Amino acid sequence: MRVIGIDPGLRNLGWGVIDVAGSRISHVANGICHSQGTDLAQRLLSLHEQLTLVFQTYRPETAAVEQTFVNKDGAGTLKLGQARGIAMLVPAQAGLSIGEYAPNKIKKTVVGVGHADKGQVAHMVKIQMPGVVLTGPDAADALAIAICHAHHGGNGALDAAVARASA
Amino acid sequence: MRVIGIDPGLRNLGWGVIDVAGSRISHVANGICHSQGTDLAQRLLSLHEQLTLVFQTYRPETAAVEQTFVNKDGAGTLKLGQARGIAMLVPAQAGLSIGEYAPNKIKKTVVGVGHADKGQVAHMVKIQMPGVVLTGPDAADALAIAICHAHHGGNGALDAAVARASA
Repeated sequence: MRVIGIDPGLRNLGWGVIDVAGSRISHVANGICHSQGTDLAQRLLSLHEQLTLVFQTYRPETAAVEQTFVNKDGAGTLKLGQARGIAMLVPAQAGLSIGEYAPNKIKKTVVGVGHADKGQVAHMVKIQMPGVVLTGPDAADALAIAICHAHHGGNGALDAAVARASA
Repeated sequence: MRVIGIDPGLRNLGWGVIDVAGSRISHVANGICHSQGTDLAQRLLSLHEQLTLVFQTYRPETAAVEQTFVNKDGAGTLKLGQARGIAMLVPAQAGLSIGEYAPNKIKKTVVGVGHADKGQVAHMVKIQMPGVVLTGPDAADALAIAICHAHHGGNGALDAAVARASA
């Protein structure tokens, strides 16, 4: 099963693709879509085109998108919402089911604690996929989202493997 | 010049198309895209497909989208942002320039005051385009957005006509 994780953002949208076979996960690719253009519509269009190309290239079979943290900064929430609309649209256009996970659930799954910082997430992603070259923090987060989906998206074999590892 | 106005919303996305010739405006069509499906991604996909069909059918040459009012309801802002991402993406995919107008600017242009309610907006839209049948309040708002864009989107003739009418 090929899984794509997406970390939505208007400026930088991280993505990470992994393969899950039984209890094993392996890295396929990761990257960041940088929005081009000066106005909002152009930036959204740019993100849509880049992310669509990622889907066409790597053909994931299921997707996961980080749930957005809603804070007091309404303008920031709106910007992120618009980018997240694109992040949800592209997998829906590809006909995929989409898992949504809260940031602390992703961190708890990958690092073991819900309050881990970005450095810890990247570190654990590297440990779980030796040799991976991370495009940047947003791509590391996206791979963590994909790993989280591999664990919680109905993959019983992976869950069992984690249970054995923790026992 | 054919203008489309879009009133973004996740549940109901209003749209209205008008033709502008010199200082005259005329109604072409209006409607509401109702998002289908139970989950967010399906609803965004549904909005994208319906709005794309509107663009293919009426082939507007320029577009305007209402600026979203950011309030204290972060979850609501996020939902609206995701729908607004789609509302911006579709005209950008069609290669159109997109005007953005604040709600009070739209009301001031169409009704004459910035704090007009939805009923007043619909009333003035009907007066300016006799015989128009409005699909609903969101479609009336979308036509108002299109009218606002006709006035402020660089149409000098229309501005002059309004100045004469108000003199």
